[in-house]
Amino acid sequence: MSVSPFEHPFLSGLLGDEALSALFSADADLKAMLAFEGALAAAEAKDGLIPPEGAAAIAGGIASFEPDWLQLREGTRRDGVVVPEFVRQLRAAVGPDGEKHVHFGATSQDVIDTSLALRMGEALSILHERMERVLADLDQLAARDGQVETMAHTRMQAAIPVPALRKIESWRQPLLRNKERLAAVREGFLVLHLGGAAGTLDKLGKEGRAVSKDMADALGLAVIPHARHSERDHVVVLADWLSLVTGGLGKMGVDIALAAQSEVGEIRIKNGGGSSAMPHKVNPVGAEVLVTLARFNATLVSGMHQSLVHENERSGAAWTLEWMLLPQMVMATGAALRMASEVVGNIAFIQR
Amino acid sequence: MSVSPFEHPFLSGLLGDEALSALFSADADLKAMLAFEGALAAAEAKDGLIPPEGAAAIAGGIASFEPDWLQLREGTRRDGVVVPEFVRQLRAAVGPDGEKHVHFGATSQDVIDTSLALRMGEALSILHERMERVLADLDQLAARDGQVETMAHTRMQAAIPVPALRKIESWRQPLLRNKERLAAVREGFLVLHLGGAAGTLDKLGKEGRAVSKDMADALGLAVIPHARHSERDHVVVLADWLSLVTGGLGKMGVDIALAAQSEVGEIRIKNGGGSSAMPHKVNPVGAEVLVTLARFNATLVSGMHQSLVHENERSGAAWTLEWMLLPQMVMATGAALRMASEVVGNIAFIQR
Amino acid sequence: MSVSPFEHPFLSGLLGDEALSALFSADADLKAMLAFEGALAAAEAKDGLIPPEGAAAIAGGIASFEPDWLQLREGTRRDGVVVPEFVRQLRAAVGPDGEKHVHFGATSQDVIDTSLALRMGEALSILHERMERVLADLDQLAARDGQVETMAHTRMQAAIPVPALRKIESWRQPLLRNKERLAAVREGFLVLHLGGAAGTLDKLGKEGRAVSKDMADALGLAVIPHARHSERDHVVVLADWLSLVTGGLGKMGVDIALAAQSEVGEIRIKNGGGSSAMPHKVNPVGAEVLVTLARFNATLVSGMHQSLVHENERSGAAWTLEWMLLPQMVMATGAALRMASEVVGNIAFIQR
Amino acid sequence: MSVSPFEHPFLSGLLGDEALSALFSADADLKAMLAFEGALAAAEAKDGLIPPEGAAAIAGGIASFEPDWLQLREGTRRDGVVVPEFVRQLRAAVGPDGEKHVHFGATSQDVIDTSLALRMGEALSILHERMERVLADLDQLAARDGQVETMAHTRMQAAIPVPALRKIESWRQPLLRNKERLAAVREGFLVLHLGGAAGTLDKLGKEGRAVSKDMADALGLAVIPHARHSERDHVVVLADWLSLVTGGLGKMGVDIALAAQSEVGEIRIKNGGGSSAMPHKVNPVGAEVLVTLARFNATLVSGMHQSLVHENERSGAAWTLEWMLLPQMVMATGAALRMASEVVGNIAFIQR
Repeated sequence: MSVSPFEHPFLSGLLGDEALSALFSADADLKAMLAFEGALAAAEAKDGLIPPEGAAAIAGGIASFEPDWLQLREGTRRDGVVVPEFVRQLRAAVGPDGEKHVHFGATSQDVIDTSLALRMGEALSILHERMERVLADLDQLAARDGQVETMAHTRMQAAIPVPALRKIESWRQPLLRNKERLAAVREGFLVLHLGGAAGTLDKLGKEGRAVSKDMADALGLAVIPHARHSERDHVVVLADWLSLVTGGLGKMGVDIALAAQSEVGEIRIKNGGGSSAMPHKVNPVGAEVLVTLARFNATLVSGMHQSLVHENERSGAAWTLEWMLLPQMVMATGAALRMASEVVGNIAFIQR
Repeated sequence: MSVSPFEHPFLSGLLGDEALSALFSADADLKAMLAFEGALAAAEAKDGLIPPEGAAAIAGGIASFEPDWLQLREGTRRDGVVVPEFVRQLRAAVGPDGEKHVHFGATSQDVIDTSLALRMGEALSILHERMERVLADLDQLAARDGQVETMAHTRMQAAIPVPALRKIESWRQPLLRNKERLAAVREGFLVLHLGGAAGTLDKLGKEGRAVSKDMADALGLAVIPHARHSERDHVVVLADWLSLVTGGLGKMGVDIALAAQSEVGEIRIKNGGGSSAMPHKVNPVGAEVLVTLARFNATLVSGMHQSLVHENERSGAAWTLEWMLLPQMVMATGAALRMASEVVGNIAFIQR
Repeated sequence: MSVSPFEHPFLSGLLGDEALSALFSADADLKAMLAFEGALAAAEAKDGLIPPEGAAAIAGGIASFEPDWLQLREGTRRDGVVVPEFVRQLRAAVGPDGEKHVHFGATSQDVIDTSLALRMGEALSILHERMERVLADLDQLAARDGQVETMAHTRMQAAIPVPALRKIESWRQPLLRNKERLAAVREGFLVLHLGGAAGTLDKLGKEGRAVSKDMADALGLAVIPHARHSERDHVVVLADWLSLVTGGLGKMGVDIALAAQSEVGEIRIKNGGGSSAMPHKVNPVGAEVLVTLARFNATLVSGMHQSLVHENERSGAAWTLEWMLLPQMVMATGAALRMASEVVGNIAFIQR
Repeated sequence: MSVSPFEHPFLSGLLGDEALSALFSADADLKAMLAFEGALAAAEAKDGLIPPEGAAAIAGGIASFEPDWLQLREGTRRDGVVVPEFVRQLRAAVGPDGEKHVHFGATSQDVIDTSLALRMGEALSILHERMERVLADLDQLAARDGQVETMAHTRMQAAIPVPALRKIESWRQPLLRNKERLAAVREGFLVLHLGGAAGTLDKLGKEGRAVSKDMADALGLAVIPHARHSERDHVVVLADWLSLVTGGLGKMGVDIALAAQSEVGEIRIKNGGGSSAMPHKVNPVGAEVLVTLARFNATLVSGMHQSLVHENERSGAAWTLEWMLLPQMVMATGAALRMASEVVGNIAFIQR
């Protein structure tokens, strides 16, 4: 299967990312949804909303849960969201002692948005680590080649000579700033979503706040005053950040491809790509892919902003659009950072 | 695996399409690339550019070809394109009698763009068939409910009553026009790409035109005067058409979701989606997904237009961007047409 | 005034277009709206829906109509559309003999969409003429420089030498195809819009068809079987075409900028732009602007596709979005064609 | 003139904003460019790079400067940027005592990017003030109608009743968060740009830092360690923020339009828009425009992200694209905030 280049048998060599794609697997999603239901039951038991035996039965059901994937697929087709069928299967697994307490007071969006928050925590850590890696690679490049004289170009024409360091800094500084921007992105995204049917936690009564606090602690997420089902700014802030990162790397990519042109030769690429028709060529494949991924995210980010127009208390249309765009943007960012390390490690500035 | 909702274990129930995703599998791509190389060798033998034994050996190698997927992936990582490694493997399969004649005079882009043309022929036939199906569904709906009086709404306010037929026509007419537009899209896309290293078929000498003609005939594609490696209008014309189709269905989706609102009740949905928190609800899931898919394609189409800025004789950056966007747009269109049939079959206009 | 670069006191030198911007002036719009109301009254008189004296009074009111711009602005603020206030002012100008017959049976969208169709007829003729001009410029370039040997570049690396003609053809062919595509775009766009409140011409009774035919003839537009208020495919088809044109010219722009690089020097630019810091530079300003305009239209085209999700019988939200995007896309296309002529006239391929 | 709805004689009633459009006038730009050149000369005189008499002559020339607009337009056409011709005119105005010291060590991008920073300072203050106004309007609405029972809707179906406060909060919270996000946006944008030809301030020698500091102080901008000519993240961060703001208001707009539907009637709109065909209607014009402006910015933001791929030390193509998109996004945001106040002031929740 291979509509997605990120998971395609051969295109994934160029564009894929195994560590990140694992986080978007159905398995990882299911595991995070189970964690949500387990933490919910535990917190509700602690706060007296469901009996301890119920929570215990739920914990048992979760431990041994085996999904019926076909029915999950069928349920998603019908309901537009996997949760009703997932809850039905989980209830069956939990059995009579706890089934009626499963998912008590929660709604589909609570489960799905929280599952994403849990997995994005890991994804953002991976991206952060890779940013540090690229920064280190650039530092190394600067230490070795920073004083090589290279030609500055403005408006596609040679301007005046500058040290390579000037160019490297124009790649490093945005990456550094984007790394600093990550903290606010994380803080906004890594929160527990728990609102119930209409975002008011109506079934939990006055215990709502306590349950939220306990669940958030158990899941390692922050607690927010009220659910943000229909307020999607935190999701778009993440998407914007992803595209900022790839955009900065795309700038590096185009600079390298230009400097490595046959006629310019200010950058030499080791291990460039070959051609089926012209074996002598050394193509700046990695640099080009950085441009591709930048333009890809710059395209998709528009749809994320469109999804801010999220009608009423939950929009099936706008919410589903996020599912179709955001995971790809994360993947593209991961791939770009991975590729950036490879590219930076493979180039050398050439004294003119 | 499941970054892509089109192939996700459960989201594909809502957004996927097996018939179309098969056309974007690596297997289907490989099969089409082999067809290209086979037709190329046959035509070159016929036109005296390679010996008949060479073509025979190539045909034999193709018949028994077993790809080494891992190496194809590694080659794509290195070269940015699968073809150099694919040709290497094919040469090995062909053996000494023909290996040097494999891929003679062609370039990577010839293989890949032609493989896509071959598979899009099938994809467009599937889409065409589904359009006819949706049109028939709408005709049936019109025949049954067309005279039901329904309220026209302008600027989100009730205007004057109109027959349901008026509304149905506003869904049917664009679909009909889009079906008519398909012919020109097909004609531009279903062509043989054969240009060699720089689009001039330099290695084929005066036989270039004859080889092109013979190959095109064998593959069921049209022949064009010269290769269009860097001229991407035909690709964008396809993308535009895909988004026109989903846009028209998205309009139907939003209309149905609005008419099916609890407070409006002018359309009743059978088999609507359920909720995990409110079992009584009948959600217009299919109608919402039509809106999602329209907005998805409307987002991606922008990147396709960006890729028209395709520098020089082949742009790794712009071309790879097409690979990341176009297959998804085809999938989204297929899913929307499939869903549209389901939705139209499930609704009834209600006399007020 | 100058939010818009197209009409900015100095940026318009680079990006503007006086012939086209005149068509988007409020004056031109008003003139076309008056033509609509005049033709409507004449046709309704002919078909017996309003008395001949009414039509005569309307013709007189139109002839002497002086808009109160401030009130038109205020009316647009209030109604979201200029027509109710415009009709009020027109009625006052027509006076007691015809005021009640003004705008009979029509709705705001009829007036505005038809006004746009009328003006786009002129705009598309201008664009068509410029395409022919650029094609002629390219023919001249090909005649003079076509046999100059130039280097083909694939993936940003020198590949093999080709005649300049090869490169020129990759600019000329898409432009030629886009010129051929214009006929279908015109045909879909240059139609009369007349549907009345809900698109059913309910007030015109059985004379609706005749009135439409007569009006369309008078205005030089085609007549369509029923109004397309909420079916926006023809608008998006136009937008797609505009972006195809600028995309093809953007490809030419990036090619020229790359070939004119100081280190490459395969193209020499006469009259390139100067720099405030480095007076010696010859910047490929026109070529860069072609890229800018391509990316601009590639950006805006997405919003046009989003506006296909046009809810109910008239969407204030989606329709207004068209007004914000389409005129700019026309302007950008006009500016790109104008600039393309200038650029092509200013370059020469240099024998290596 | 009126390609731009923001400055159109009647559309500006709906979509325009006089306070903000003044900041994007050529006059305001010129004034800011003069401020740049004045501050540069003063700082350079203080730091011993140019003689005090030179700075005095420049100050005199600036005080009496009268632009030749036609030549500025012609210069922009030629150079792609107004600065070379602007500097030429300024030199002429300064006269022999200082002309050679005008613009010393600076480059076009320094002037233009700093001019934008200066004007965005004012624009962001206006937007901030309007956000506070809308928040106050929402507080007032909440105080009056917050306890009215209204129906929550999920997936376009009635869910459970909630207090209107719940809905108001889903409009207020994102606006509040966006207001908080403004501080970081301001900090990144309101900086002095001074880098010289290639961003290294090569002509200022060791005084470069001091000149930057003095200029920044004089202009009320922050100083940054080195020029960011080709690092555009701060520009895109601003664009993202603008679209976040309009997106949140678009969500409010769609909610209001839905709740005000004839069949729902949970919100009543005072002063809604009228129709030319159906005088009885009360159209939610302002609410619809909020959706339009959200989708407009969500469209344009994509092009801003594309412009991150800013090649080399200055890209004419990518930089010019910013000029075509960013001012419009600011205008759309200003218009949305203005309209939001009007809309919030005009609605009332109706007890069911």
